[in-house]
Amino acid sequence: MKSKLKIVKIGGNLIDDPISLDKALNDFSSISGNKILIHGGGKLASEMSRKLGLEPKMSGGRRITTAQDLEIVTMVYAGLINKQIVANLQSLDCNALGLTGADANCIASEKRPVCEIDFGFAGDIKKVNSLIIDGFLKQGLVPVFCAITHDQTGQLLNTNADTIASMLAAAMSQYYETELDFCFEKKGVLQDVEDSDSVISVIDSKLYNQLVEEERVHSGMLPKLQMGFDALKNDVSSVIIGDAGIINGTCELCTKLIL
Amino acid sequence: MKSKLKIVKIGGNLIDDPISLDKALNDFSSISGNKILIHGGGKLASEMSRKLGLEPKMSGGRRITTAQDLEIVTMVYAGLINKQIVANLQSLDCNALGLTGADANCIASEKRPVCEIDFGFAGDIKKVNSLIIDGFLKQGLVPVFCAITHDQTGQLLNTNADTIASMLAAAMSQYYETELDFCFEKKGVLQDVEDSDSVISVIDSKLYNQLVEEERVHSGMLPKLQMGFDALKNDVSSVIIGDAGIINGTCELCTKLIL
Repeated sequence: MKSKLKIVKIGGNLIDDPISLDKALNDFSSISGNKILIHGGGKLASEMSRKLGLEPKMSGGRRITTAQDLEIVTMVYAGLINKQIVANLQSLDCNALGLTGADANCIASEKRPVCEIDFGFAGDIKKVNSLIIDGFLKQGLVPVFCAITHDQTGQLLNTNADTIASMLAAAMSQYYETELDFCFEKKGVLQDVEDSDSVISVIDSKLYNQLVEEERVHSGMLPKLQMGFDALKNDVSSVIIGDAGIINGTCELCTKLIL
Repeated sequence: MKSKLKIVKIGGNLIDDPISLDKALNDFSSISGNKILIHGGGKLASEMSRKLGLEPKMSGGRRITTAQDLEIVTMVYAGLINKQIVANLQSLDCNALGLTGADANCIASEKRPVCEIDFGFAGDIKKVNSLIIDGFLKQGLVPVFCAITHDQTGQLLNTNADTIASMLAAAMSQYYETELDFCFEKKGVLQDVEDSDSVISVIDSKLYNQLVEEERVHSGMLPKLQMGFDALKNDVSSVIIGDAGIINGTCELCTKLIL
């Protein structure tokens, strides 16, 4: 029987608000057994861009990454946020190891081809090096990934954190019974964006297609749902979307995805 | 017999100039066997500070680190510079793993006590976790450290890269015959700061004390020399100061420290 692995992605306002982040990290640190954290940080990167006089651009919930933006996201994701999270987890006796996809060649990607939109230095994942990541887990380390990968020719690339979480979970499923949690500031996928309690408790592929068709899914939620279903199709045993309460199972509401 | 470990610290203008940095990384990647890289990046951090409207402050060649400065050095050292170096080394088939002292609790430090000068969030190293670093080497990884450590209670701290190189070399000397190279833009320690070829080829403890007494050592060079001698006193087998040519032994001039 495979042993368990919990993969938690934290994003949205969870990252910006120190109290919410502290609580989430506290809950994460108390998960027993193998675990991996993935974090976003788009809002802090956008803030830093503006401080440096640049206006961030998005398309369909995904960032358009110019060369200058890439420098900023590398600083903010891999530097500021990742290392503060690592230091915080270390203080909670959680032996965190902060990583980009370039470190130990964990995640190789390729620059997204220019189609209708030029996403700039955005990377689509080609390969997750599950063996080296498993090596870190076996050393008792807790990998903490930020949303930066590389193309193996020296180019760093900005990669959606939900995508990293999904493909990491899929790759690790060959060794582990893997659970994937997408945590953010909301309680789950909402029926009505104005009503924070209108959580859809279960979404199956049929309902997902229906929600997309009827354009009832918010643009930022689209890639998360798509990545959740991709993970399930690739042997991930459980995918849940919700607030930080899903980390330690104390939430009353959340959205579970099923095929 | 112990196997060999080469520890290279790169700093100064070597980091700021892409061509010099590329060459240094190329030479570093071709070192066979166990190796560790440590990098500075103070000039790029100072540049970023100024872009964000802050004027960096130094005392005796060491940075005074306010809370805002700490955010900037964390972004620039652990994010921008470290990850660009890692991606660059990966493209050269060198399996680099970027690290701060917080990652895997590699280097624990404590906030420098306030004496005559308050250095702010500057960390003095308490403990190098040589076992986990050796574990990375045994996995075939090449640790790449930036100048950030942590105090194990969640606080990141800015730590002089020369000090990290020296204490890392000392700690690893229990397992390896360790060579330590301090690389920067000059050919070595200069007799006459105006004459770039006036390299002192050997400095022993006696000459070092004499140079310090006569105030013939530049403020930025002082900690480097002190750290070099500390390394030698702690069983490091060789300490050399010079330009990037010392990485692959192609330099004609350099400064060797001996006890």
